[in-house]
Amino acid sequence: MSKGRVTLPSEKNYFKETMRIAEKWGADAIRDSDGTKLDDELKKSPFKIYNAYFPTRAHNDFITQHMEECPEMYLMSERVMATNEEVEIAFMREYYPEQLKVDYLHNPKEYWEVIDRTTGSVVSTEEWSLDSEKNSITIYKAKKWHEYTVSFLAYIIWDPVEMYNHLTNDWGDKEHEIPFDVLQPHSYQFVLETMANWLKENPDVDVVRFTTFFYQFSLVFNQYGKEKFVDWFGYGASVSPLMLEKFKEAKGYALRAEDFIDEGYYNSSFRIPTQNYLDYIDFVQQFVTKTVRKLTDMVHSSGKEAMMFLGDQWLGTEPYGNYFKETGLDAVVGSVGDGTTLRMISDIPHVKYTEGRFLPYFFPDTFFAGNEENIVNEARMNWVQARRAILRSPIERMGYGGYLTLADKFPAFIETVAEITEEFRQIHKEIKGSRAKTKLNVALLNHWGALRSWQAFTVAHALYCKEAYSYYGVLEALSGMDVEVSFISFEDVLTDGIDQTIDVIINAGAMNTAFSGGEIWKNERLISCLNEWIYNGGGFIGVGEPSGCEHQGRTFQMAHALGVDKEVGYSLSTDKYFKTAEKTHFITEGMMKFDFGEVVNSVYSLSENTEILEFSNDEVHISANEFGNGRTIYLAGLPFSFENARLLMRSLYFAARKEKEMLEGYSTNIFCEVSVFPEVKRYCVINNSATTQETTVTFGEQESERLTLNAYEIVWRDLL
Amino acid sequence: MSKGRVTLPSEKNYFKETMRIAEKWGADAIRDSDGTKLDDELKKSPFKIYNAYFPTRAHNDFITQHMEECPEMYLMSERVMATNEEVEIAFMREYYPEQLKVDYLHNPKEYWEVIDRTTGSVVSTEEWSLDSEKNSITIYKAKKWHEYTVSFLAYIIWDPVEMYNHLTNDWGDKEHEIPFDVLQPHSYQFVLETMANWLKENPDVDVVRFTTFFYQFSLVFNQYGKEKFVDWFGYGASVSPLMLEKFKEAKGYALRAEDFIDEGYYNSSFRIPTQNYLDYIDFVQQFVTKTVRKLTDMVHSSGKEAMMFLGDQWLGTEPYGNYFKETGLDAVVGSVGDGTTLRMISDIPHVKYTEGRFLPYFFPDTFFAGNEENIVNEARMNWVQARRAILRSPIERMGYGGYLTLADKFPAFIETVAEITEEFRQIHKEIKGSRAKTKLNVALLNHWGALRSWQAFTVAHALYCKEAYSYYGVLEALSGMDVEVSFISFEDVLTDGIDQTIDVIINAGAMNTAFSGGEIWKNERLISCLNEWIYNGGGFIGVGEPSGCEHQGRTFQMAHALGVDKEVGYSLSTDKYFKTAEKTHFITEGMMKFDFGEVVNSVYSLSENTEILEFSNDEVHISANEFGNGRTIYLAGLPFSFENARLLMRSLYFAARKEKEMLEGYSTNIFCEVSVFPEVKRYCVINNSATTQETTVTFGEQESERLTLNAYEIVWRDLL
Repeated sequence: MSKGRVTLPSEKNYFKETMRIAEKWGADAIRDSDGTKLDDELKKSPFKIYNAYFPTRAHNDFITQHMEECPEMYLMSERVMATNEEVEIAFMREYYPEQLKVDYLHNPKEYWEVIDRTTGSVVSTEEWSLDSEKNSITIYKAKKWHEYTVSFLAYIIWDPVEMYNHLTNDWGDKEHEIPFDVLQPHSYQFVLETMANWLKENPDVDVVRFTTFFYQFSLVFNQYGKEKFVDWFGYGASVSPLMLEKFKEAKGYALRAEDFIDEGYYNSSFRIPTQNYLDYIDFVQQFVTKTVRKLTDMVHSSGKEAMMFLGDQWLGTEPYGNYFKETGLDAVVGSVGDGTTLRMISDIPHVKYTEGRFLPYFFPDTFFAGNEENIVNEARMNWVQARRAILRSPIERMGYGGYLTLADKFPAFIETVAEITEEFRQIHKEIKGSRAKTKLNVALLNHWGALRSWQAFTVAHALYCKEAYSYYGVLEALSGMDVEVSFISFEDVLTDGIDQTIDVIINAGAMNTAFSGGEIWKNERLISCLNEWIYNGGGFIGVGEPSGCEHQGRTFQMAHALGVDKEVGYSLSTDKYFKTAEKTHFITEGMMKFDFGEVVNSVYSLSENTEILEFSNDEVHISANEFGNGRTIYLAGLPFSFENARLLMRSLYFAARKEKEMLEGYSTNIFCEVSVFPEVKRYCVINNSATTQETTVTFGEQESERLTLNAYEIVWRDLL
Repeated sequence: MSKGRVTLPSEKNYFKETMRIAEKWGADAIRDSDGTKLDDELKKSPFKIYNAYFPTRAHNDFITQHMEECPEMYLMSERVMATNEEVEIAFMREYYPEQLKVDYLHNPKEYWEVIDRTTGSVVSTEEWSLDSEKNSITIYKAKKWHEYTVSFLAYIIWDPVEMYNHLTNDWGDKEHEIPFDVLQPHSYQFVLETMANWLKENPDVDVVRFTTFFYQFSLVFNQYGKEKFVDWFGYGASVSPLMLEKFKEAKGYALRAEDFIDEGYYNSSFRIPTQNYLDYIDFVQQFVTKTVRKLTDMVHSSGKEAMMFLGDQWLGTEPYGNYFKETGLDAVVGSVGDGTTLRMISDIPHVKYTEGRFLPYFFPDTFFAGNEENIVNEARMNWVQARRAILRSPIERMGYGGYLTLADKFPAFIETVAEITEEFRQIHKEIKGSRAKTKLNVALLNHWGALRSWQAFTVAHALYCKEAYSYYGVLEALSGMDVEVSFISFEDVLTDGIDQTIDVIINAGAMNTAFSGGEIWKNERLISCLNEWIYNGGGFIGVGEPSGCEHQGRTFQMAHALGVDKEVGYSLSTDKYFKTAEKTHFITEGMMKFDFGEVVNSVYSLSENTEILEFSNDEVHISANEFGNGRTIYLAGLPFSFENARLLMRSLYFAARKEKEMLEGYSTNIFCEVSVFPEVKRYCVINNSATTQETTVTFGEQESERLTLNAYEIVWRDLL
């Protein structure tokens, strides 16, 4: 039994049990969780001690003296239709008063907006009045039968994550933790002083685990105390009159409420980002980075490490953002939901190490009597889905979170995690810090580019979403594939052109979203650049509604290259003749069944040159086309499955004209995958399935090896 | 056996056989078909004689002297991408040279357009040259990687319908009939003179059956002699330099090629019509009407009737258009594909009678040995689907078309038609010219309004279309329903408001099409008008993507009234809580299974007030909402079936708050329908199905009658 690379959560009065489990899992670090404290004996032990640190909450004594320094958000009221000239809008009606308190300190007539949503025009401040007792506004000269909304500022008076944990774990009358805004003068002072004091008072802590920094992602509850809105990327909770003022100073123009309200969509990452919003993100990132650096410098001065939890108040610290390298962080830890989120953590640059927090979280909603089988399965599946990504880009450490007392009641779970942690250490022992061989460079093209690497198609971290899973599967498939993955933005292409080392560009997503691109496809420079690049040999794969934007007779603006377009009803008069799929094709070799997820209706082939690889329900779901020297492929959707991962892999190698290279370290069985580590002359084969699998591993056309792998097994071999 | 109301096709040398079948079917009129002539004995018989008359074809002796008077069309070349500064486009490559001949008589630099389809801009005429030998143009300073098209004028040198019949019936080297354009001086003269002479020479003809007049709907063949483009509503084939000149004189502004090319969509009726295109339609209608009137006046002077076939060269004679009443036509005959097309014919105003041509057409593609069962079934199904519409709005006459010699080989078919014609006469005998009772006024709202009554969602007459059938079912359901149906346009609403006698407005169709409406939904007057009308008690039913147009936070612009909206990806961060369907509801009472056709993804309920009536695949397919005093209903789609006809009927009565009225003449069995004729104090019950059905017919809550009907049976009863 080896040891190391594993972090264990512990609790008060649980020292002996913690030692037992630490021994079993080979843990070398101990952490606390939200709501727990560690025993002093533990702190004195040789274990590395992580301590959660909340810079901007858990100090109600302070913030209750300065409630004007709570963070704020712009919120939109419900829509109210005018049936008279006088309309009243009770704008807080759909919000949770325990979480949100209307900001009456800053002049509503200056910061708020009443908007006629039927026309989109702003109602003059002279035409409405405010009743702060009732949290309502009255419009006096409304246009009858129009709908109106109020955009208003509210203080966040209950930290949304603590609120979530509080409500989920039924913490009853435990005091609500009130957040504070580090931009404000007292809070700024307090945050720095408290950090200094805390560092002095906690000499036994080795790693300060910031959870996280200053601004919470958007998490808003409704009048029933249920989640109303959640956006892991939302910058809403960083807004305040002071932030707006400083923005204006820095960027030279003022933002208005609607820049944040965004018709009620709040700049979801699926929205095509406006320049104003991108400027705002940039501005907040700079401020956050500067302030984070002050804290990490203090941490380092006290001889400790600074680790960031990737989540909660992570706004402005995006690890793939322009300023992350200036944060001074030593490490990032994040929750691992699957291969995609693993890569989101493990690919982070500029830190010494990364750590993954695996599932399930030891919370009572999972760890209850009778649920052991599910708990064990979740742990196993979580590991297996992450493992293929670890083999591509390893996290240095792993760990779990929650209450160890709960987990300890399930011996089979303790056993399973022991196996998982051992396998994790084994991987590191084998690869010795080297990287698996990759044979292709693949770039995902969307509006967010590198900033949201491994974060496309995500609403709430790793959660299923009906409208996104058919695209998210692309990321998940890539996360464990033998290809280099990069994320590029349309702006990158327009500014720098396309990097000639890229083999294949993927554009995936629903029409008119930030991921497929929308109006940007009317930009002739973008089209020309891609045309030239593909024509000269580049590979282009479109998934769903790629380049979807109605313009000049086409729905897909890259239809000429893809050889297919989507019928939206305008060209029904044109006969569609190409309705037969090729019987066999490199791309679909070995596919037993197809699953395209949520259907993208009525894609059709434009000419006899397009190879149709799957045709059903009178529409194309897979096709391939030649465009000059380049190859293009259309896929209707790609929900994650091992079949679809294989389909995408074959598509990528085909598009890149590297079909032969694919066979250099290839498993014939789609449930098995091969990773080759040339530096250490080793390779491994993993079985991703719950059953025994037989496979042949090939290295080019000559060599091959026949293997039988047990359920979930990983085997290591010498590379000849 | 009764007699009358039936028209029979005949042929040369088939007199006796014709007499036999005429007797069997009770025919009182005889017609010729395309390519056939009638025996002289027939012409002298007491039968009413119809003679097909083609004003603008079948006179090659004339037109070959004036080939510059062939009708013309604007056509778009294929799209060609520039890989160099010099680009050649062989613009005729995808067209059928036997049908189309490039117009080099009128200066191409004046009439044609070369368009950069990547930007939509027109290439200066100085930057391209023409090679009339090769039918190609060369652009000299093309922008590399942009796509280009040529919009050019071509003469139609083979009448498209004769061409279709020619190719379908394998007429070999039979001379191609060349069409001519009545707008041109020689042709105009010729058309009038020929008509005058023909009337003199054909004293035995009773009815001049115009097939049709001057301008053919769009029917374009590709380089392989296969259909490339067909639009039953397309005005493309009426364009010529002369027509453009006259348009400019009349309307005060000039049209350009792109007004007709429309990015390659050629103003499909699914496109939101531009004002230019509407002006052009109006202009052509005026010219056609005036010229038709000259012919009908001549026909009347010679003591004959003028009948129009609704199809072929019907442009400008739209029976629901503003000028139709001035054509002087006595009758219209049209092909009956189903209930919708039946109503399209039978509802035509300003004529003495209408006649339906039933299916199957006696053509060799259907009437071949071994196909008798299918032939009989098609005849029966065609009749049954039309019958329910006939009961609502009867055609006065029926008939068949094609080659009687072919039909005569199938005795079971002859028998079936005998039964059908007898049943048809029986209906007229019973109703004595009175109309069935209706209990609701329903209006379909779209961009075309009355002009295209019973013609919405149609590509080619009565043909199935994957993208349209989920909406077309609304018309088909309505065609046999006990409601008054009108067709109104957005323009009508904006100009005149909403007629207060309307009970329910339906808006149906895919997003951004002429049928759902698109951008017009940003017009605040339209929204206000509908809001007020519904709020004060109107019923509103949305089908598919009603009022779909992304604007100010909503996808459906009537979402506030409907209580549902469509998720296009922007509001994924907002929790959707309402996911349970009501167990029972008036609207869905008796529904055993649901079929919504082509799926409209991700419609969700906006609030707890919306009643969800069907929820599956994590989306709403049927819902109902209260909006002030009005009721609204959402239906995801409504392919035609008797279940869905019932679903729509119940929806309409519910939306109108007339649930009780529905039971006044109601069949509990959905396969049976009741029509009540109060004037003659009779009612009938039809069985639309191929099996015996039991049903209870109710008249309000008191009276009811239990009935058993044989397959397809119609029974008549006295109304108490």
